[in-house]
Order: sequence, then structure tokens, then C-alpha cells
Amino acid sequence: MSESQTATGRPKASVEEIVERFEKLEARIAELEEIQPDDRVSLVVFSGELDKVLAAFVIATGAAAVGQEVSMFFTFWGLSALKKDSKLAGKNLLEKMMGVMSPAGTAQLPVSKMNYFGVGAKMLRKMMKDKNVASLEEMMDLARELGVKMVACEMSRDVMGIGDDELIDGLESGGVGSFLGDSLRSKTSLFI
Amino acid sequence: MSESQTATGRPKASVEEIVERFEKLEARIAELEEIQPDDRVSLVVFSGELDKVLAAFVIATGAAAVGQEVSMFFTFWGLSALKKDSKLAGKNLLEKMMGVMSPAGTAQLPVSKMNYFGVGAKMLRKMMKDKNVASLEEMMDLARELGVKMVACEMSRDVMGIGDDELIDGLESGGVGSFLGDSLRSKTSLFI
Amino acid sequence: MSESQTATGRPKASVEEIVERFEKLEARIAELEEIQPDDRVSLVVFSGELDKVLAAFVIATGAAAVGQEVSMFFTFWGLSALKKDSKLAGKNLLEKMMGVMSPAGTAQLPVSKMNYFGVGAKMLRKMMKDKNVASLEEMMDLARELGVKMVACEMSRDVMGIGDDELIDGLESGGVGSFLGDSLRSKTSLFI
Repeated sequence: MSESQTATGRPKASVEEIVERFEKLEARIAELEEIQPDDRVSLVVFSGELDKVLAAFVIATGAAAVGQEVSMFFTFWGLSALKKDSKLAGKNLLEKMMGVMSPAGTAQLPVSKMNYFGVGAKMLRKMMKDKNVASLEEMMDLARELGVKMVACEMSRDVMGIGDDELIDGLESGGVGSFLGDSLRSKTSLFI
Repeated sequence: MSESQTATGRPKASVEEIVERFEKLEARIAELEEIQPDDRVSLVVFSGELDKVLAAFVIATGAAAVGQEVSMFFTFWGLSALKKDSKLAGKNLLEKMMGVMSPAGTAQLPVSKMNYFGVGAKMLRKMMKDKNVASLEEMMDLARELGVKMVACEMSRDVMGIGDDELIDGLESGGVGSFLGDSLRSKTSLFI
Repeated sequence: MSESQTATGRPKASVEEIVERFEKLEARIAELEEIQPDDRVSLVVFSGELDKVLAAFVIATGAAAVGQEVSMFFTFWGLSALKKDSKLAGKNLLEKMMGVMSPAGTAQLPVSKMNYFGVGAKMLRKMMKDKNVASLEEMMDLARELGVKMVACEMSRDVMGIGDDELIDGLESGGVGSFLGDSLRSKTSLFI
């Protein structure tokens, strides 16, 4: 095509042309870098069931511990788990799991419930033997220390009429846009 | 190594060599661009519980409103929420949430149910005061207007024997491959 | 700025300078390549409800079938679905779904339960007519054949006191770090 070609048949590029192409590549690389997700994990905590809230905090603190920025967006029933006067307060992890498991286990897990009558007893023994498990409150404190961002869903608060004074301290307030803003730059997003 | 080296000790590259390396870089950049996720959000709506279906539509319409392509894949119980003769039809958002909350709340939320007896009353007052909340049907219309893709799971339809005429209009049909095809190029995927 | 400039006003770059800039670009591209997610899907199977465990295996085997590396992390109730003496064993898919649907359906889906009394009957007919649906056990075998990694949550095993001999074969053991290690390099992560 060009009158000046190299032995390989490729057109001979001037240094200026190379620099120009080069700068286009640089721009494409900068754009790629711009759209990469952060080291970030975003969780919607929709459920107010203790076992799911616990799972959320295990994942949140685990992720923060390996250097991820973590956002937890509490909505619907999840939000109510953060109420100050929650029945969850004042019990340790295993006591709460017992509470979850006895009435909740049978109502929620009808397929496998027969297996769980045995689990309750094992857990009770475990509970008595092992006082070393972190409570939900301890896990929430740990989450805060690790810089986990906890956001209370505005719409849920509005619909349920939950005031600031009813919620535990240290919560931010935000809507679905707040969740999406974090989630769309996250490597892992989960709805719990 | 090379007999012709610059003062810095780096082998002197010919323009042709540079162009060759350059084109390899261009290919690597093009490949990176190719594998980047779209501005896309994919949701599996597995649950048929009204509160979860509502949460799905809040996230879907919120994501579409900020420019994301959104796919909702309705499967198992989620599919049944889209049946025309659904008990969900003909009620507004808060009426439905009341419905969800009274029988469902006690069955599903045994840990925190005590807190919810109070919420029901607050919500009733709210409901009477505030007629401004979008109903599920309005949110589905909004989702359609915003171009949200709604896919009915073929396997679930087959197993449950749900015909075209039983489902609301505007649904596509697809299998798990359809969900994965969208999800694997999404920035956020959630199982609701 | 430079005394030697081209006609376009761009400083005249020497080949050495180009090579230097070039190598910086190469490093940035290598870093981008390094942080890209794998062709990978990670699932937390938290629920022990048969319908959700089935959904998890449909997604897992579907993803493996289209070439994704798949990890399933079984925790809390999800882990119990993998117990050898599970009530889930020895039934086919539809028998199990019937089991899920009759007691569980009414307990879990109070909003739409009226619609489901009809579904039960349809499903029974379907079940009698169609013996061609894969059972959970068949899907687990398929998952293993497709190389799906199944991890049993150590903490759940510990809390519930579940020994190796109580679990089906072919499970790995790991904590939340194991899940996050996979999930943070996945294109899709779901909490089921």
C-alpha cells in the first residue's frame, strides 16, 4: 500500500506515527484501569433471621480482614435486626442460634428438620463447652473496627417508621443508589 | 546481548521491532477490552415472597435508572409471582406488605417477630397517610419502560405446568444458560 | 518545551524513549491481565431447602457445562443437605419437590400459597408421566464429573458437630477465606 515498506511488507512507520498510536493505546489502558472494580465487597442484608445476619457478618469481617472495602446495606427485615431493642441483643452467638434453630428451624426447614432435632442437642453441649465464639455484637464491633460501612436503607426506614434513636449507632443512611454505587465497583456482591 | 546497544545498555530496537511489539500490545488490550463486563446487572428472582419480589424490582429499576442493562430471571416461586391470577394483583404496595407481614412475618421471622407486631400498626398508619408509594404493578411497568429484560425460567414453567396464557405479558423465555450468559458479563449479579 | 519538535508540535521522541514508555505500558497491561476475574462462578449454599439446593446445582452444572470453574461453598443449613443420612436421599427430584412444596410451600410462601394447591396436583401428574428429570443425587454426580468444587464450611461443621463420616464423599473443607478466595476472582457470585 505505502510506497515505503520494510522487507517484511509492513509499512514503514515514522517515530511520530508510532508516538501517536502509542498515545491512543495509553488512553485505552487508562480507560481499562478506570473501569476495573475496586477491592470491594457489597452485601445486601435483606433477611432479619439471625443465622443469615451472622453469615453476612462472617463474610463482611472475613472480607475486610483480607483487605477488601466492605459495604453492608441493611434493608427490609435486615434493618430491623439493627434495632436497639432487638431480641437479638444480650445473647451470645450460640444462644441465638439455638433460638433460631428451635422455632425457626422447624418452620423453615421442613425437608430436613428431622436431622435437626439431633443438632440442637449437640449444639447445646458445644455451647456449654465452648465460650470462645464471637457474639453478633462482637462481630459488629469487629466490623466497625475493620472499617466496614453499614448503611440503613432509607425506604425501609420510612415505610417501617424507624427513627434514628431506634437504631444502633454508627449506621449511614442511603437508598438503592447507594448500594448500586458500591456494588457496581465490587468484585463480589451478595443478597443475603 | 545484542552487539548494538544504547548507552543505557538496552538493546537498540529498530522501528520495525517496535511496531511488532506494539501490535502485540494492541492485541492484548483488545482482548482485555473484550472480556470487560458490560454495564449490566443480572438478578435471579427465585423467591415468590412479595417483599423479596419488591426488593428485586427496586434494585432492577434503580439499576436501569442509572444506565445499567438489567435482566431479571424468574425461576421457581419467583415465576409464580408473575402469574396473571396471582393473589398479588389488585392490591397496592402497602396492602401487599401487610399481607406479607401478618402471616408470613410470623412464620418466616421467628427470631424478631415480637418487634414486628408493632411494625404492622405503624405501617397501617403509614399506608393510610401515604398513597404515594409505587405498587408492584407500577414498578413492573416502570421496569418495562426502562427496558428491563424479564425472563421466565423454562424448566420451572415445565415442571409447574405454567402456560403462556397464565403469565403476564412481556416476558421472554429462557433456561439457566440465558441467565449465565447475562450474569457472566454483569458487574452485579444477585440471587433473590 | 523541547528544542527539537516535530511539525505537529509534539516533542521528538528517540527510539530509546519510546521503548521506555513502551515497557511501562506493558507493565500496566500485565497488571490489568493479572487482576481480571477467572472464568469462574462461586456459590454460597446457605439454605438447606431442597428447592434452593436444586437451584444451586442447576446453576453450578450449567456454569460448568459452559466452561466455568465452579465452587460451591456449603454452610449453615446448606451443609446439612449434604449429610449422608439426609431425608433427601432415596427420592427422585419430583418426589422431593412435592415434599418441599406441601409442608414447606405453605409455611414459606403464605402470600401465594393459594396458587400452589393447584401446582401440587399438576406436579404429581407430571411426576407420574415424566421419569426423565435428574434427581439431586444425579445432579451432584454430574457436578463432580464436571469438576465442580464442593467445600464444606469448617465453622458450620464445628458448631453443628458434623463429622467426616456423616458427610457425603468428595467434599473439601474450608472457611470463609476459601469462599472469598474464589469469589473475588469470579465473574458471578451468588448467595443461595
